[in-house]
Amino acid sequence: MKIDATRLQRTIEELGRIGETPRGGLTRLALTDDDRRARDRMVAWMREAGLRVSVDRMGNIFGERAGTQTLPPVMIGSHVDSVPTGGKYDGQLGVLCGLEVVRALQDGGVRTRHPVTLVIFTNEEGARFQPAMIASGVMAGKIPLEDAYNARDRDGIRLVDELERIGYLGPEPCAPRPFRAYLELHIEQGPVLEEEGLSVGVVEGIVAISWSRLTIHGVQDHAGPTPMRVRHDALVAAAAVVSGVRGIATRLGGDAVTTVGTLDVAPNIVNAIPGRVRLSIDVRDPKTEVVDHGRAMIDQMVREACEREGVRYELEHYWRVPFTPFDPAVVAAVERAARASGARCRRMLSGAGHDAQYMAAIGPTGMVFVPSRGGRSHCEEEFTPMEDITDGANTLLLAALELAGRG
Amino acid sequence: MKIDATRLQRTIEELGRIGETPRGGLTRLALTDDDRRARDRMVAWMREAGLRVSVDRMGNIFGERAGTQTLPPVMIGSHVDSVPTGGKYDGQLGVLCGLEVVRALQDGGVRTRHPVTLVIFTNEEGARFQPAMIASGVMAGKIPLEDAYNARDRDGIRLVDELERIGYLGPEPCAPRPFRAYLELHIEQGPVLEEEGLSVGVVEGIVAISWSRLTIHGVQDHAGPTPMRVRHDALVAAAAVVSGVRGIATRLGGDAVTTVGTLDVAPNIVNAIPGRVRLSIDVRDPKTEVVDHGRAMIDQMVREACEREGVRYELEHYWRVPFTPFDPAVVAAVERAARASGARCRRMLSGAGHDAQYMAAIGPTGMVFVPSRGGRSHCEEEFTPMEDITDGANTLLLAALELAGRG
Repeated sequence: MKIDATRLQRTIEELGRIGETPRGGLTRLALTDDDRRARDRMVAWMREAGLRVSVDRMGNIFGERAGTQTLPPVMIGSHVDSVPTGGKYDGQLGVLCGLEVVRALQDGGVRTRHPVTLVIFTNEEGARFQPAMIASGVMAGKIPLEDAYNARDRDGIRLVDELERIGYLGPEPCAPRPFRAYLELHIEQGPVLEEEGLSVGVVEGIVAISWSRLTIHGVQDHAGPTPMRVRHDALVAAAAVVSGVRGIATRLGGDAVTTVGTLDVAPNIVNAIPGRVRLSIDVRDPKTEVVDHGRAMIDQMVREACEREGVRYELEHYWRVPFTPFDPAVVAAVERAARASGARCRRMLSGAGHDAQYMAAIGPTGMVFVPSRGGRSHCEEEFTPMEDITDGANTLLLAALELAGRG
Repeated sequence: MKIDATRLQRTIEELGRIGETPRGGLTRLALTDDDRRARDRMVAWMREAGLRVSVDRMGNIFGERAGTQTLPPVMIGSHVDSVPTGGKYDGQLGVLCGLEVVRALQDGGVRTRHPVTLVIFTNEEGARFQPAMIASGVMAGKIPLEDAYNARDRDGIRLVDELERIGYLGPEPCAPRPFRAYLELHIEQGPVLEEEGLSVGVVEGIVAISWSRLTIHGVQDHAGPTPMRVRHDALVAAAAVVSGVRGIATRLGGDAVTTVGTLDVAPNIVNAIPGRVRLSIDVRDPKTEVVDHGRAMIDQMVREACEREGVRYELEHYWRVPFTPFDPAVVAAVERAARASGARCRRMLSGAGHDAQYMAAIGPTGMVFVPSRGGRSHCEEEFTPMEDITDGANTLLLAALELAGRG
């Protein structure tokens, strides 16, 4: 039993045109018109594949293929939103491989004991509304629905208002529901599989992640007549923090990664000493305690950097997920499926958060990785060869089939 | 002969309400609706004071009080645009003290041999359209009119289109015109006068200024699964540049000042390694050769910082004005006027660029400084005590009177 690689490739290309950038990437921010268009296309394809479609209060879309028995479903999911100038593989590949699995089951006339349900989660990236994975977070009971509804983008627009505007504020409750297993196929977003010449990663868990925000208050003043001796420059302090965050990864060592991804300066004009800087700090490591140690190092480093420049600051560690181990039985099923598909595979951890992280809190969960060329993602250059995608999609198919049970 | 301090204060307060911020500062960017409203108010006051008003092709406004002879005018000028969240003194104070000088001459029935002309220059700040002092630059023949017209703000809107939209695209040529003297009153924007307990600075010239822009191209990638060893982070390189720019001021020593005022990150999201950073570098010193030396230090420092992170960059030194000495006779006249007004004064240099810089290239020029509380400017906290403003305005009046000649 195999998926149809030609059909899958065509589907990837077709959905990839919605929000396509001039350089072949994707800008499809959550709950924008392009997100709506991609959702509409997916819903149409899901109905054509015979799925019963429903939408919950967070805009998560479910497409169920009934089983022969009244049992919890095997869920296969991912997301169709992207970061700005992102790529065509992060998110939509997992959804489209899930669609292809359902189509393959349909083509083969295969019945399963458990239903198989395709899921599209809202706002996985966190590029528009924070935090990331907000909708699976609500579903897992980790984020209150009200908090998610009141998340605002940079223009102050609320998530719930955008859900309603694009027509995806559904009636189903967004709450934990029983499932046989949750499976998610995703690009690795790192260089390991490519470097080792492998086509599939069997994901055993997701690293611990911490997000912090820092606001530095300097003294806005004129860049000309203000002598260096009296300056309190928020950007000079921020620069020391950016360097310090990089240094913390070195000091933590191992697989720890640290990133300042956003930095905004006010008033941001050539001839004014920056009066305020806001920036983000992202820390990840397979070990939760290493991430916690990184946070403590940030506390001290920021204090020292801001004291040196004589500036005030507010540092908020506002989001943290511990190391998430996946279900051993599901991981084993994914590994068997990869072997049976003829994929060259290894077990590994995910360095990125995924909706699978929250799903693992409420049911048996596993993931399938496929390689990222050059390890690159969240950029227009994202690329995965079709033969590796095929291995990954077949792994997903066979794992879903084993977990749902023929019958 | 004295100015009317009560009337002057009332005028400052009234004009300051156009574009006032909630915290008592001013946001009146060049050629916005608020700039138009401030211009309209000024034109009305100029006409009430008996001035003949004309507008040139750069939107510079001239209000002439005729002399008894056909001679080049004594010009008194400044600007009414501000930086974002700036103050109520930078620019508009010079224009309003000039207006008060004309009103005082009118009240006293004083005739002068040379005409006295009040000037309001367009887009002095450079906060919306770059470079700063663009309109006096065109008038001095240093910036081609076409280049100025095609300057674009962050939204891509052209300067000439905004001039036309707000009704200040005038018919008069914007070209060098003969003048007896150009005088500009301005806040010091530095701490020297306040620290020394003085009310007036007699400005002998303007420091040399260099502006550069740097674009750093890193490799945009996911902040999670991308190991530190493969990263090329544009913001990490930029942070080293910001620290390096600060260090260059220390190494240059003396009165040199260096500032990174703007810094923009792309894609600027929490979980993406910054792929591109743009920033500005401002270097100033009384000596032109020190500024040039600073540029050479920047070249080397940027090269090293970007090599360390393995990122490409473009560095452009796009604007430079050498040290501008003012006319010794005008400076002496300003100093006599300050003494005659009873002001506590000293000679000094300006650390900020002013329209006087370009005017000095085409005729005899001088400036009057008044103190800035805490040395602060380009911020909402800008403040100058009314008694110091009065000393400054009287200095401006007596200097203009001496240069224009009673008659």
